[in-house]
Amino acid sequence: MAKGLTSRKENYSQWYNDLVIKADLAENSAVRGCMVIKPYGYAIWEKMQAVLDKMFKDTGHSNAYFPLFIPKSFLSREADHVEGFAKECAVVTHYRLKSSPGGGIEVDETAKLEEELIIRPTSETIIWSTYKNWIQSYRDLPLLINQWANVVRWEMRTRLFLRTAEFLWQEGHTAHATKDEAIEETLKILDIYSGFAENWMAMPVIKGIKTENERFAGAVETYSIEALMQDGKALQSGTSHFLGQNFSKAFDVTFLDNKGKLEHVWASSWGVSTRLMGALIMAHSDDRGLVLPPRLAPIQVVIVPIYKKAEELSVISSEVEIIRQDLIASGISVKYDDRDTYKPGWKFAEYELKGVPVRLAVGSRDIDNRTVEVARRDTLEKKSYPMDGIGETVKALLEEIQVNIFRKAQDFRSRNTVAADSYQEFKDIIESGGGFVLAHWDGTRETEERISQETKATIRCIPLDGEKVPGKCIVTGKPSSQRVLFAKAY
Amino acid sequence: MAKGLTSRKENYSQWYNDLVIKADLAENSAVRGCMVIKPYGYAIWEKMQAVLDKMFKDTGHSNAYFPLFIPKSFLSREADHVEGFAKECAVVTHYRLKSSPGGGIEVDETAKLEEELIIRPTSETIIWSTYKNWIQSYRDLPLLINQWANVVRWEMRTRLFLRTAEFLWQEGHTAHATKDEAIEETLKILDIYSGFAENWMAMPVIKGIKTENERFAGAVETYSIEALMQDGKALQSGTSHFLGQNFSKAFDVTFLDNKGKLEHVWASSWGVSTRLMGALIMAHSDDRGLVLPPRLAPIQVVIVPIYKKAEELSVISSEVEIIRQDLIASGISVKYDDRDTYKPGWKFAEYELKGVPVRLAVGSRDIDNRTVEVARRDTLEKKSYPMDGIGETVKALLEEIQVNIFRKAQDFRSRNTVAADSYQEFKDIIESGGGFVLAHWDGTRETEERISQETKATIRCIPLDGEKVPGKCIVTGKPSSQRVLFAKAY
Repeated sequence: MAKGLTSRKENYSQWYNDLVIKADLAENSAVRGCMVIKPYGYAIWEKMQAVLDKMFKDTGHSNAYFPLFIPKSFLSREADHVEGFAKECAVVTHYRLKSSPGGGIEVDETAKLEEELIIRPTSETIIWSTYKNWIQSYRDLPLLINQWANVVRWEMRTRLFLRTAEFLWQEGHTAHATKDEAIEETLKILDIYSGFAENWMAMPVIKGIKTENERFAGAVETYSIEALMQDGKALQSGTSHFLGQNFSKAFDVTFLDNKGKLEHVWASSWGVSTRLMGALIMAHSDDRGLVLPPRLAPIQVVIVPIYKKAEELSVISSEVEIIRQDLIASGISVKYDDRDTYKPGWKFAEYELKGVPVRLAVGSRDIDNRTVEVARRDTLEKKSYPMDGIGETVKALLEEIQVNIFRKAQDFRSRNTVAADSYQEFKDIIESGGGFVLAHWDGTRETEERISQETKATIRCIPLDGEKVPGKCIVTGKPSSQRVLFAKAY
Repeated sequence: MAKGLTSRKENYSQWYNDLVIKADLAENSAVRGCMVIKPYGYAIWEKMQAVLDKMFKDTGHSNAYFPLFIPKSFLSREADHVEGFAKECAVVTHYRLKSSPGGGIEVDETAKLEEELIIRPTSETIIWSTYKNWIQSYRDLPLLINQWANVVRWEMRTRLFLRTAEFLWQEGHTAHATKDEAIEETLKILDIYSGFAENWMAMPVIKGIKTENERFAGAVETYSIEALMQDGKALQSGTSHFLGQNFSKAFDVTFLDNKGKLEHVWASSWGVSTRLMGALIMAHSDDRGLVLPPRLAPIQVVIVPIYKKAEELSVISSEVEIIRQDLIASGISVKYDDRDTYKPGWKFAEYELKGVPVRLAVGSRDIDNRTVEVARRDTLEKKSYPMDGIGETVKALLEEIQVNIFRKAQDFRSRNTVAADSYQEFKDIIESGGGFVLAHWDGTRETEERISQETKATIRCIPLDGEKVPGKCIVTGKPSSQRVLFAKAY
């Protein structure tokens, strides 16, 4: 076990907190609920951003930037939206400070805003007020825009990455001429999100529709991807909303269609946030520290020299330089840690803690034998490989690790996804370790709320894929068209 | 002249505003002083970001993210700093809204923050309060961190890109064991900024030291790069500050040096912002629209088909596809505009307005002759080139354009940089068109302020490069060690 890291079994929640701190990913700041994302954590986020950004651009989206501030009156324009967001808003009321008579500074009461400004909790309102001027004709559609930004939701109970007052995210806001196109876009993005989660984060997800209860405030339909964490709790990892004409009506955004008829625009919005960092950490890591999928690891390979005397180091280093170049030529990001202030054992533990997928150790004997000791972070296996062709060897190994991590997470999810056919059975499963539970539900808010109150498990989504076999609600016995996905959730 | 674009001669300021709007770069938002950066403008900013980010990383810097909010008390910790920033701060005082009895929403007065939060106008205070926990020993130094973020300064008179209440920027914050190292870093970044301005933006700049009057609030020394716009006004395009131990003392950040002695840390901070967009626009553009340096143009080449009948178009399009692939293979970003809703003439004007460096026109006769008509945006020259090898031809042309734009800006600056040897001469130059004026100054704040009040010209910087010939102050006749750079400024 890594030094100072609580084990998952002992206290999963503490393990997570320890890990975020010890692996230098993030920490709490002096501002309540706001985090500092440290360089190593930010480097992972940057990798995620780059991949997602490319996926958005490859599907025709452009980035833009809209104001941080939202006039208070804009929030109330869409009735459900304001209901969902007003309670947790940071409000700017003044625009100047002045010296206090007693020293220090105080708010200058003469510099009070006529209308208060809200720090964006999400940008539908400011963006749709802007789209009004951008859209006149069907020729202006579709409008496929994304924004990378910070947002603020005044959460009372915060946890690093999972729930913070300020977080970083991307928010897409698209405008379409028809309902079908807007729905198609909503689902296209859901596929991008699930593809990203599975192929890059190595994290299997279930795509589905949210119940009315869990729907985005202002959406007609909310779709999400749901992942299962190692403690049996679900983590919603991305949402894509079909907004219908709710926002175009609230902001009066109309267009002349190709028959010259004036219509309201159809919309989608969608986002993933730094919460994905929490998902990534919890999906794969172990009691030794982070386990990162190679495709998102800032450092894919670390090389540690093993030596006793300084003369040895210089020989090793020149050999390592050849290895390093070979790895770089194979497109691998590599770090050579030749610091003499730390022992190899300390370095091994450090890079295990930080989740570096592959560690190479090179000592004098390796040089004699023309070999390298290769250690995998995921399985902790060590094996000796020939120095020649090490670039190709490691490249293949990184791909194998990527696949293995995904398969492991998938196996875990399979083992922890069960069907419950009675409410008692459901309760027993939820109480004994949790996981995903597939059960029939009668489609009513009342039943959903009763289950949530009695078991703390909620409907994560109505899955889109898989068999849709009808049955009877586990609580009321009323008919159900398909099983829905329950879990306790983050 | 582009449709709806005021000429520079008629009204330079209006020309700039028109251009920003007509070229789809940015617009004012519903929030006073805040802009919306539109997709085309944002695409240029993204290119700038990518280049700068690589330059920072190549010199050992890492990105991180610190909170948007700064506790009010933090601002007052550094005396000069609070003096400089408190007057233009957006202040968060509440964290919840509630329904108004009369409909709509209002601030919930019961949700008042104990200590107000300031939206960061710059992040020295929140970052140095964090560094206190990150730095204990000389082994923790240097700390070379950069942040890409939004900041807010409550400006009363705003202009798109040049001065906005919210803007985007990068801010570097570094910590060092010695004064010399911190100064070296400050100057290294100044070189990165000037290299970026000259090699990427094609905009010549003068590096120099700011006078005490113009120094960053909290810095020991501020360095800047200064560019000359076409209206003879200067634009400060980036600043790099040597902060001494001001912030480490304010936040008590100390370290044990390699002799075991406790010392305060030395610091630098540095930034460029979306203001660079304003500089880029004004440095090169003309009465037809934007002129973008090829290295920062989101679209480097546009291809327009010239045809009368639909049958012609399909033949042209398949030929264009070969050309397009050839260009892409040469690393060129290319757009083929085959929309039939617009005439070629309209498209030519549109892409001139948007500053696309090279336009290719392909008609049926070109296909017969195996030629392409190539038009340069910078000189507006048109010339026919063989279709074969067009990728290499255009690649070379783009490089030529990049160089030509820089040379043109450099020539303009040379013609508009003059030495003044008397105050009368100085005033005459400033009144008749402006430009950079090199003049001797006695080094006092009084003289600087007198010149500024009487002529509106300010000292842009004390140049670092070039000859340093002593002389006498143009106002007081007192000794001066070198000429300093004056101009009216944005």
